[in-house]
Amino acid sequence: MFSPLIDELMSALRCLPGVGPKSAQRMALHLLERDREGADRLAKALSASVAGVGECNRCRTLTEQHQCSICNNQRRTKSMLCVVETPADVLAIEQAGTYQGTYFVLHGHLSPIDGIGPSDLGLDQLQTLLAEGDIEEVILATNPTIEGEATAHYISERAKRADVSVSRIAHGVPLGGELEFIDGGTLAHAFSSRQKI
Amino acid sequence: MFSPLIDELMSALRCLPGVGPKSAQRMALHLLERDREGADRLAKALSASVAGVGECNRCRTLTEQHQCSICNNQRRTKSMLCVVETPADVLAIEQAGTYQGTYFVLHGHLSPIDGIGPSDLGLDQLQTLLAEGDIEEVILATNPTIEGEATAHYISERAKRADVSVSRIAHGVPLGGELEFIDGGTLAHAFSSRQKI
Ligand SMILES: [Zn+2]
Ligand SMILES: [Zn+2]
Repeated sequence: MFSPLIDELMSALRCLPGVGPKSAQRMALHLLERDREGADRLAKALSASVAGVGECNRCRTLTEQHQCSICNNQRRTKSMLCVVETPADVLAIEQAGTYQGTYFVLHGHLSPIDGIGPSDLGLDQLQTLLAEGDIEEVILATNPTIEGEATAHYISERAKRADVSVSRIAHGVPLGGELEFIDGGTLAHAFSSRQKI
Repeated sequence: MFSPLIDELMSALRCLPGVGPKSAQRMALHLLERDREGADRLAKALSASVAGVGECNRCRTLTEQHQCSICNNQRRTKSMLCVVETPADVLAIEQAGTYQGTYFVLHGHLSPIDGIGPSDLGLDQLQTLLAEGDIEEVILATNPTIEGEATAHYISERAKRADVSVSRIAHGVPLGGELEFIDGGTLAHAFSSRQKI
């Protein structure tokens, strides 16, 4: 409607999650009318990230450095390794602020129909890490979906063979969650995983 | 938390309206994990727009062209000129789909405390346009705020002096709007602007 460059900007903004056509229009006009400096900064940050960000060579999380700031942190417990599906999971756990170990990021889960097998998830690299002997416990924090559970199971078998202790984070009713609003699958799991007190 | 480039990307994404820290994190990780092509496209679109988009030399709306596609459209009624505050207003009116005339974009409203006077709003350019004699009606569609009303009043005086007929778009209860949910100011205006039937 405006001109090719503006139409392309509105269309390109839709690559952002949660941004529909109306938001993209509002964002494009806001940047061009009121914040060209911000738009410039964003363009540079996007280019630099796409060009520079790769994976930590120990835990595979996103970083432009050789090793990420968590793997590099002397105060983190290197004997604990929490396996997650995505860097967003790392962020969520870090923001909870209690876990002091390190991570291993799969960037997905086993999914034979999509052709995603162990090597796509870096499980050979994980095997090497476990073989080094510094890791004493692997905490499986893949998602409680069918694929996430299958992936957790696969890794637990491998870890046991490497003589590393394995645990799975607890799933159930969230703290503060009211029973009546919890989905049936979660409730069923909470019952079958009940613990004696 | 991740690394300087990713932190800067998360921070830069916050220049987008409606994007808080959580959304910015989600967007950055989504782009880096799943849509680097989209991120690249967005970077290019931002740079190209910031560098190329200026104002239409007739109506001052955003465009990288000499004249925008509306001013350039032979089927638009050049004798009607709708004065709006922003390009977003042009977009809203175009999307309503009934107005067939052209526009004049102020990029703001008169605001003496912010040092925004007539020349900042292109009113000299508007004067020149009116003096050319092609425009028969100016439709004032500035916002129904104190500043928007003052701006509309100022322009109406100028237009009358140029012997151009002036109108103001109607303000009142939106169609489909339920009275009980309409703010008091709008209701008061709807009463004082009532029309005989
Ligand atoms: Zn790392
Ligand atoms: Zn124009």
